Amino acid sequence: MPNVRLALAQTNPTVGDIEGNSEQIFSAVAVAAARGAHLVCFGEMALTGYPIEDLAARPEFLESAEEAVLTLASRLVDEGLGDIAVVVGHPALAPQNTQRESERLSEHDWSIAQNVASVIREGEILGRYAKHHLPNYSVFDEYRNFVPGDELLTFEHLGVRFSTVICEDIWQSGGPVAEISRAKTDVLLVLNGSPFELDKAGRRVELARAIAAQHSCEVVYVNLVGGQDDLVFDGSSFSVSKHGEILVRAKAFAPDITFLDFDAIAKTGRSTETEAATHSQLESVWQALVLGLRDYARKNGFKSVVLGLSGGIDSAVCATLAKDALGAQGVYGVAMPSRYSSQGSLDDAADLAGRLGISIRTESIEPVFKTFQDQLTLTGLAAENLQARIRGMILMGLSNSHGHLTLTTGNKTELAVGYSTIYGDSVGGFAPIKDVPKSMVWDLARWRNAEATAAGEIAPIPENSISKAPSAELRPDQTDQDSLPDYKLLDEILELYINQHLGVSEIQAKGFDGAVVSKIVSLVDGSEWKRRQGAIGPKISGMAFGRDRRLPITNRFKSH
Amino acid sequence: MPNVRLALAQTNPTVGDIEGNSEQIFSAVAVAAARGAHLVCFGEMALTGYPIEDLAARPEFLESAEEAVLTLASRLVDEGLGDIAVVVGHPALAPQNTQRESERLSEHDWSIAQNVASVIREGEILGRYAKHHLPNYSVFDEYRNFVPGDELLTFEHLGVRFSTVICEDIWQSGGPVAEISRAKTDVLLVLNGSPFELDKAGRRVELARAIAAQHSCEVVYVNLVGGQDDLVFDGSSFSVSKHGEILVRAKAFAPDITFLDFDAIAKTGRSTETEAATHSQLESVWQALVLGLRDYARKNGFKSVVLGLSGGIDSAVCATLAKDALGAQGVYGVAMPSRYSSQGSLDDAADLAGRLGISIRTESIEPVFKTFQDQLTLTGLAAENLQARIRGMILMGLSNSHGHLTLTTGNKTELAVGYSTIYGDSVGGFAPIKDVPKSMVWDLARWRNAEATAAGEIAPIPENSISKAPSAELRPDQTDQDSLPDYKLLDEILELYINQHLGVSEIQAKGFDGAVVSKIVSLVDGSEWKRRQGAIGPKISGMAFGRDRRLPITNRFKSH
Repeated sequence: MPNVRLALAQTNPTVGDIEGNSEQIFSAVAVAAARGAHLVCFGEMALTGYPIEDLAARPEFLESAEEAVLTLASRLVDEGLGDIAVVVGHPALAPQNTQRESERLSEHDWSIAQNVASVIREGEILGRYAKHHLPNYSVFDEYRNFVPGDELLTFEHLGVRFSTVICEDIWQSGGPVAEISRAKTDVLLVLNGSPFELDKAGRRVELARAIAAQHSCEVVYVNLVGGQDDLVFDGSSFSVSKHGEILVRAKAFAPDITFLDFDAIAKTGRSTETEAATHSQLESVWQALVLGLRDYARKNGFKSVVLGLSGGIDSAVCATLAKDALGAQGVYGVAMPSRYSSQGSLDDAADLAGRLGISIRTESIEPVFKTFQDQLTLTGLAAENLQARIRGMILMGLSNSHGHLTLTTGNKTELAVGYSTIYGDSVGGFAPIKDVPKSMVWDLARWRNAEATAAGEIAPIPENSISKAPSAELRPDQTDQDSLPDYKLLDEILELYINQHLGVSEIQAKGFDGAVVSKIVSLVDGSEWKRRQGAIGPKISGMAFGRDRRLPITNRFKSH
Repeated sequence: MPNVRLALAQTNPTVGDIEGNSEQIFSAVAVAAARGAHLVCFGEMALTGYPIEDLAARPEFLESAEEAVLTLASRLVDEGLGDIAVVVGHPALAPQNTQRESERLSEHDWSIAQNVASVIREGEILGRYAKHHLPNYSVFDEYRNFVPGDELLTFEHLGVRFSTVICEDIWQSGGPVAEISRAKTDVLLVLNGSPFELDKAGRRVELARAIAAQHSCEVVYVNLVGGQDDLVFDGSSFSVSKHGEILVRAKAFAPDITFLDFDAIAKTGRSTETEAATHSQLESVWQALVLGLRDYARKNGFKSVVLGLSGGIDSAVCATLAKDALGAQGVYGVAMPSRYSSQGSLDDAADLAGRLGISIRTESIEPVFKTFQDQLTLTGLAAENLQARIRGMILMGLSNSHGHLTLTTGNKTELAVGYSTIYGDSVGGFAPIKDVPKSMVWDLARWRNAEATAAGEIAPIPENSISKAPSAELRPDQTDQDSLPDYKLLDEILELYINQHLGVSEIQAKGFDGAVVSKIVSLVDGSEWKRRQGAIGPKISGMAFGRDRRLPITNRFKSH
């Protein structure tokens, strides 16, 4: 068995920053070479970032990517790194003769690109693999954007036979993946852009084990890392032997280069370690949210965020996430009391800011509210919404004046049932906890406090913000449970309706009250128009609001 | 040749209103029967409305549609209409053994439905055709939502042989449509959910002619009509003979039942009439916008709209559209002057309201602006945005108090370059002219005025609103051209960048100034986050903002 050292290069690209991403790739190859690597494998579309969406339809974009691959190849030779095999993901113009058989669009020549892995060596492109299975479900639109490939790429490097596939290809049967054994593959390189989802990491490992066993080869799984709009790539690249042993494991939620010595593989045996052992669920979610927020801010040029601090749990968790993402100096809190705000809420907000060491200012909404009401005299819900909208206007004014990214602090439960004011508390460019159900917001707060305490630090979130009854404080003595069922019950029903696609009678059959279920389902359906205008935020569940769940606004279907 | 009478039933369904749509279908069959029809053909998904998006993933929804087909079949028999063949579009659970061959999703069992046409006769489902070509480009996600069918359905009724396909099937080569001649088809029934786009109607007719000539059959093209979120189905159903003659043509933008006598077809010859002759482009656009707005309001339960009247051209056109859609009594205009508003603007707004006979009230933004500024003292762009946001707050307050749908009056040019204030002038549930470039807004205004004048009515839009230089009036003596190029030039460049996917250097090569092009492209790219939070509005172009154009917010690619 030859002695070949592989490097799993887990980079954090930015979509469209081809130059910057190329630099990352070059540096990673140089670092890997310095540590003796003979082959370096990157994640899916590491050169352009991922997903590129309809940028795939722009010839200019594809040409820029192609030029960057050639430039990288030359530069590697120029810098004496030409003998290293580099496997890098990028989009490429589909070959002229590639037809999506009978599905090829004649009138609308939309898909002109392929999602490929190029193998670079000695300044040349040794081969190119085009992704076969194009995910077109959940947040993915790959059948829209790409033409599928249909051939496995196998190449030999220093006596070892490598085959290359991309992400979804190992999740489906059929296609090039079926050819792995026939191609006498020693090592299968899988380039991935696999976003974080609760409990997904373990499934990846199980899948890689199954492929490794079936095709009797080692599997190297390289994932991207970093936030891209509503997705967070969690990294966690790994390799499994044909015996099922986890050979290496890269960091979660951070760039990493991990090495794997091929001659050491033969010595391995069976392992049953699973990902679950390495990260608790809440820890993973927290890190995903921090990375999603940090990268959205960084990649869009924001150094600071502004958010309202109500004294409640949602804004407390968002402020803590923001501090973890950007540092205390990048977080600007604003307490915006109304006539209905309790002193306790103001105290809790100030307590939070003190614990986090972040800036806080107080801007009463009372003067503007009074002036507005002297003129229009709104009542009921309209008056409640008005208060939220004045707060939104203050936050946007500060954002416009100081260049802060505005964070909106709504959680998934609120977004589901429409318990928010559009153009009010919903204003902002990013929604850090939009995919976190209210029950989990509390869990995260407790987890984060416990972590801090265990580390001998100050628990960031005031106990009072966790334990008190949640209230929007838009009218006297209001609590959320005046208009909504208990959050635990609510979240259970939402899980069944939204994530599991069950109807009212099916949910009722699980022991829930039919009237409550109907009411909740009706609130969810009626809030679609608000969600459509909402900010993006990191997906952590199997069914996030946004492009993961696409429903008409005009929709009279009533689940029954 | 037997004497068979066909009816093209062009209905306006509402997505999800299976009961109401069924009622429409039953009534149309009854009316057609009373006029001697032997076969009635409906549009694509006439039973559930279209597009249903991810409702296709809900078993309960599919079961409800299936039940409705069976109920309709029984009811037709009960009412003595069982001998009529009824061809109706709806979604259906895909047969258990249907596999999307190698593409079938194992892990994510997303597509469980098919997009079908059922043939009902004598209380039974005689046959069912499943759409083969699933559009997955532009606004369509059908490959996400459906499993493709692969067999043509041919049936005989009163001695005539009919075959059935659905919409995209005739726009692509291959698949069931190739079997039409072999099946000895006399009449091809094409069920469509084809949204309005500028200049599309003529292409449909040409395509049907080509199919008719190629397969030597008559082609019956039945389209839906009505607005559904951002789409407007324009109706305009038609039939062409194998000789290319247009046999019948249904109304554009209104429900219709049109009859075609099969024994009369043999007498036809070649015709060269095209759709362009029947509607001017501006008339079609106006009708599409009116129908889109009317149906969004009606299908979502709104009887009235509220909008800001600035005295400018955009709000004038939107108010006129709203009056044409809902009647003058359903339109509530609000003039919201600031310290920078000219008396001329107020006069123009009042003049417009008088001409339209709509309600107008004046709410100065000055008191709230002053109170806010006494507290926060915003300057520059932040202060300009503040004014727009106070207006948004007033409109939403009135909307919340009175149940009006808020209209946002931004045009496509403004949305493209981000010349609007998020949570300010962008607030609203519907954006009537969001896909209309500024140059066309003026054209539409002139066209609508000329139509009125020709009909002896008062021209609705004040000449001054058309002729004056556009201004946001957010600072002294401001005009749009302070920060933007001339609108005609701007629209030409936007057409090339957005609709034609050209890059900066390609646009420059067409004779435009490189610096201007770069600036505009950069404005477009930088406004993606605002557009993501924008209201929906009717698509009239080949590339509308929204689900037609899907780009990342985080995107550092610079066209060059």
